[in-house]
Amino acid sequence: MVVRVAVAGASGYAGGEVLRLLLAHPEVEIGALTANSNAGQPLGALQPHLVPLAGRVLEATTPEVLSGHDVVFLALPHGQSAAVAAQLGEEVLVVDMGADHRLQDSADWDKFYGAPHAGTWPYGLPELPGARAVLAGSKRIAVPGCYPTAVSLALFPAYAAQLAEPEAVIVAASGTSGAGKALKPNLLGSEVMGSMSPYGVGGGHRHTPEMVQNLSPVAGQRVSVSFTPTLAPMPRGILATCSAKALPGTTADAVRAAYEKAYADEPFVHLLPEGQWPATASVYGSNAVQIQVAYDEAAQRIIAISAIDNLTKGTAGGAVQSMNIALGLHESLGLSTIGVAP
Amino acid sequence: MVVRVAVAGASGYAGGEVLRLLLAHPEVEIGALTANSNAGQPLGALQPHLVPLAGRVLEATTPEVLSGHDVVFLALPHGQSAAVAAQLGEEVLVVDMGADHRLQDSADWDKFYGAPHAGTWPYGLPELPGARAVLAGSKRIAVPGCYPTAVSLALFPAYAAQLAEPEAVIVAASGTSGAGKALKPNLLGSEVMGSMSPYGVGGGHRHTPEMVQNLSPVAGQRVSVSFTPTLAPMPRGILATCSAKALPGTTADAVRAAYEKAYADEPFVHLLPEGQWPATASVYGSNAVQIQVAYDEAAQRIIAISAIDNLTKGTAGGAVQSMNIALGLHESLGLSTIGVAP
Amino acid sequence: MVVRVAVAGASGYAGGEVLRLLLAHPEVEIGALTANSNAGQPLGALQPHLVPLAGRVLEATTPEVLSGHDVVFLALPHGQSAAVAAQLGEEVLVVDMGADHRLQDSADWDKFYGAPHAGTWPYGLPELPGARAVLAGSKRIAVPGCYPTAVSLALFPAYAAQLAEPEAVIVAASGTSGAGKALKPNLLGSEVMGSMSPYGVGGGHRHTPEMVQNLSPVAGQRVSVSFTPTLAPMPRGILATCSAKALPGTTADAVRAAYEKAYADEPFVHLLPEGQWPATASVYGSNAVQIQVAYDEAAQRIIAISAIDNLTKGTAGGAVQSMNIALGLHESLGLSTIGVAP
Amino acid sequence: MVVRVAVAGASGYAGGEVLRLLLAHPEVEIGALTANSNAGQPLGALQPHLVPLAGRVLEATTPEVLSGHDVVFLALPHGQSAAVAAQLGEEVLVVDMGADHRLQDSADWDKFYGAPHAGTWPYGLPELPGARAVLAGSKRIAVPGCYPTAVSLALFPAYAAQLAEPEAVIVAASGTSGAGKALKPNLLGSEVMGSMSPYGVGGGHRHTPEMVQNLSPVAGQRVSVSFTPTLAPMPRGILATCSAKALPGTTADAVRAAYEKAYADEPFVHLLPEGQWPATASVYGSNAVQIQVAYDEAAQRIIAISAIDNLTKGTAGGAVQSMNIALGLHESLGLSTIGVAP
Repeated sequence: MVVRVAVAGASGYAGGEVLRLLLAHPEVEIGALTANSNAGQPLGALQPHLVPLAGRVLEATTPEVLSGHDVVFLALPHGQSAAVAAQLGEEVLVVDMGADHRLQDSADWDKFYGAPHAGTWPYGLPELPGARAVLAGSKRIAVPGCYPTAVSLALFPAYAAQLAEPEAVIVAASGTSGAGKALKPNLLGSEVMGSMSPYGVGGGHRHTPEMVQNLSPVAGQRVSVSFTPTLAPMPRGILATCSAKALPGTTADAVRAAYEKAYADEPFVHLLPEGQWPATASVYGSNAVQIQVAYDEAAQRIIAISAIDNLTKGTAGGAVQSMNIALGLHESLGLSTIGVAP
Repeated sequence: MVVRVAVAGASGYAGGEVLRLLLAHPEVEIGALTANSNAGQPLGALQPHLVPLAGRVLEATTPEVLSGHDVVFLALPHGQSAAVAAQLGEEVLVVDMGADHRLQDSADWDKFYGAPHAGTWPYGLPELPGARAVLAGSKRIAVPGCYPTAVSLALFPAYAAQLAEPEAVIVAASGTSGAGKALKPNLLGSEVMGSMSPYGVGGGHRHTPEMVQNLSPVAGQRVSVSFTPTLAPMPRGILATCSAKALPGTTADAVRAAYEKAYADEPFVHLLPEGQWPATASVYGSNAVQIQVAYDEAAQRIIAISAIDNLTKGTAGGAVQSMNIALGLHESLGLSTIGVAP
Repeated sequence: MVVRVAVAGASGYAGGEVLRLLLAHPEVEIGALTANSNAGQPLGALQPHLVPLAGRVLEATTPEVLSGHDVVFLALPHGQSAAVAAQLGEEVLVVDMGADHRLQDSADWDKFYGAPHAGTWPYGLPELPGARAVLAGSKRIAVPGCYPTAVSLALFPAYAAQLAEPEAVIVAASGTSGAGKALKPNLLGSEVMGSMSPYGVGGGHRHTPEMVQNLSPVAGQRVSVSFTPTLAPMPRGILATCSAKALPGTTADAVRAAYEKAYADEPFVHLLPEGQWPATASVYGSNAVQIQVAYDEAAQRIIAISAIDNLTKGTAGGAVQSMNIALGLHESLGLSTIGVAP
Repeated sequence: MVVRVAVAGASGYAGGEVLRLLLAHPEVEIGALTANSNAGQPLGALQPHLVPLAGRVLEATTPEVLSGHDVVFLALPHGQSAAVAAQLGEEVLVVDMGADHRLQDSADWDKFYGAPHAGTWPYGLPELPGARAVLAGSKRIAVPGCYPTAVSLALFPAYAAQLAEPEAVIVAASGTSGAGKALKPNLLGSEVMGSMSPYGVGGGHRHTPEMVQNLSPVAGQRVSVSFTPTLAPMPRGILATCSAKALPGTTADAVRAAYEKAYADEPFVHLLPEGQWPATASVYGSNAVQIQVAYDEAAQRIIAISAIDNLTKGTAGGAVQSMNIALGLHESLGLSTIGVAP
């Protein structure tokens, strides 16, 4: 099988990462690469790490350029994906790595994004209960946000096992690539090296409703989420520290058992041995998720911590994994659980 | 007034930082500098940034060497301070930057440190209610831990104003100098750069009982603390994200007012203008504390975030500030609110 | 004596650094702070580390705003300083931290900057032979570039002692703040963390003629300079590795003696003890220069390495040091040789 | 073909990296993994990024454990490889990633390592003229040092084309993993972050004679090397800035042509388009070498700059590449030219 793939938005971080993975995918042939302001430039000038594609010239993001592919990955700013997708045939698998089609509730979309809601696509987080069945054969996939990926995988086993109260408190640290290549002063190297800082505090981050959307069905009730993202001085990685008060009668053994059960058969999620904690360096460049969980008896809280690479499992790796499922390929093709460390 | 000061443990990070500050203190004359395994070496070989002291040779940590000073700073591993302090006269001001004399409850000490409790000294966090009166004229000072400094200052106004439930959830990121100069594999540059990782999860960190001790009296009831520290890829700085559920009827205005009231007259604590969030880079090398607070209506939580330099306000700066109060000097002598940035 | 000082370009890195130093200067009162596009904003929003000035509002850079000060520091892009300076009276001390007035040879200016040459001002590198006499009483000062500061101090003793051939080879690593706050993709944190890269290779860097200009008079002949700057993943600091072939008969002792003689009485330049090498962390935030020199017998080359903080001694510290000399103040006022480390 | 491979020294950085690559090698089956002090521990506790091998327990480094494999990689401190290799049969391919068998001249060995010389093995830098022929079918391979790899590839085309004088000046920046996992104070994260510093200045670095050994035969005369290594605040990567005076008559076109000719057919060495310069981030985790060269007319020097990943092409990737050649496999198996960036 040869899957012919185009990438719209190939000059950004998500686009570059999906190309990095697709270059190692045995069934994929890389077709058109498009950009907006960078159209006309060779990819090697913008993504010098993608040596095999260095000579490829970026084209404009048009339906003509994107047509004739089996799969089109959209790595576009939110608000642009829907328009592009509408111009692609229904037989094409469209994988949107942006936010346009993630949320189910249009009111959430309006509140957090403030533009007309483009609709909801099958959600590309295969490890959530029931997700693979929806993804199989689908022609449209909404790739989850990087934070919701890390947080949902850290917390859903506790909710699935009915161990936790429906009020989650989350503090997550992200590498700077999560903010993209946007030229903002606070993203300059001089500003971020040596510094930790929060942003979007108090419920304002756009990934919050996506976490609520993922956890509530598992819990069987609405889960409220207090989410504080922080910017960390590293290019990649998310460390999500998630906790919720334990329901009465919870034990450390029950917590451990819930996580072991949830992830026993997952190829990319690794519950670490007791006593070992996740580190973002361990999943650098890989599609793996490292998780550990503890029960704090004094505070009566379950504390689950996950580490992912925000660009891989958090974006492009999750996208390729979902593509594999949608196309009926082996789920792990082109993906690795081996990080680049130290 | 000339205050003659000795530093025991001058080759470590806390010892080096207190020397950095004392060199800029107009009333201080630096006397003996001692070390353990590094005794006999010139300070310049171990602390090359302290140029004016480069030629000073480290002496052994003995009562003879330390005697004859007005103030002795102890920058020693916990468990060693009590023995040294017992050999110093009662007329000497002893400032212990280690943990030995911080905790009031011997049971806490036994549980978290596992050695005989050396006793409790006046606690060097001047911004806590009533603290300055206890420190004035004192001859023994226990400098708080770096995390408790950041966390207590972030949260106590909410508790003082009776706005929050007594269950605090804290996730803090610390630069690596917080772990000292110990030669451990996980502290190697190759391991920490590009990586965020938690440690001491689930209530096990020794700074937890100190936070409970600081917040409970202010709240008027026992405050439980769920504390997760993380190691961040930067040499200095703590960013503490602290939250607690708001009591019914809490408003954003009431929260803001509580923090404005608490810090209106504090020389080192700066409540940032609304919309601006702390960053550890802003307090690099300074004794300042930057704080911001938000009320998340959806999650009904108060979220207070503080940034300090763990070595300055979190250790040596707090020590010098407390020394100034104890000696009746101006509290800000030798200390700055100006960070080194970018 | 109270020196009233204005800073034009207070929102950038050089402007922020000079303010950081001036806040600690005992004879200085900080007057007007100006900016271009950031005029109207409070300084605290742009330079959050300068807590004592957080509420000061940036004004437009006009002659009216800048008038009435004893000293005006210009932290402007090159090409703008001359126009502003022309509007300031001759009785005002103008300290230009930009490039406009550094070069003596207009042909060099044309070649490397491509605009009309604004003229040459007294050069603010006090440690060069004869420099202090020229600076004393001067009303115009051109602050050297950061690289020429590091390189000239590393190499001139070898040339002054007639030990080296007039062909210098220099490779220097700079922290990212050397490139300023410009919003360029290659300066994003995601790009610079974990990466070393060169730029301006092959003689194209604008600081090259300044090095030639500094070293040639000392050598008594034209010194050619091969200069390769590299961008390092750190916010501050320059490490300059400089070498030249030794003249016949050179010995390691003669090299050492030349450097000891050159820097015996310099307050800010520290020739390290033999065997100890400079590190940029040791001079973080300080005005110190750390230098070490070796004679490689096999390659017959003198290798001199210097470390400075590019923003302090390399820009704003050198500016304040030169101001002190010009005004007849003690040269070290407001400046420190103590780095912030680790 | 199934190649059964053992790794001695699997808990260090070189050992971990060769395992990372071998896990992706389609013809390799990973056999015994050994360690010294870490024997008995699961690999997952020491190399948490190697998820597929997390449960493998490290064995002692004995002939019994290492026997029965087709290939044994030695990732041992220098001085230990010879003893282990002597206990392995001549039919086993032994790939030594340490220094023991690199140098041809025993006098060099004595001078730089000070122990009996173990002898010289075929040298695993396939891109050097004639190297592949020697490696093919060989049963013993000495993997080059990381710096000699970067430097030799940057400079040999200039010498092969007889364009440069035989006096090379090299300044290279290395990530901290080049120093291994040794617990030394100067390798602590607190020390290296934010700092650049040189070491082994003046001809003392052990990689210097290896560079001379590689370049001299190509030049047809002894090439002297002035080599200054510096430690950079990043975990991986080497940026080598190499220059030599051009012989009379050299032109920029001739220099460019020499490098184009040298690397036209090399799968892992990429001469960048003119105007684009190497960055270590671009080769992060890959076996690629990025090279650019310039001719500085004013200084009459050829400046060649290379970027490699010190652990991949500089150690383990070079080892696997050489193994492939020795075994008659496709040279690129298990290796990639795609970096992990940003």
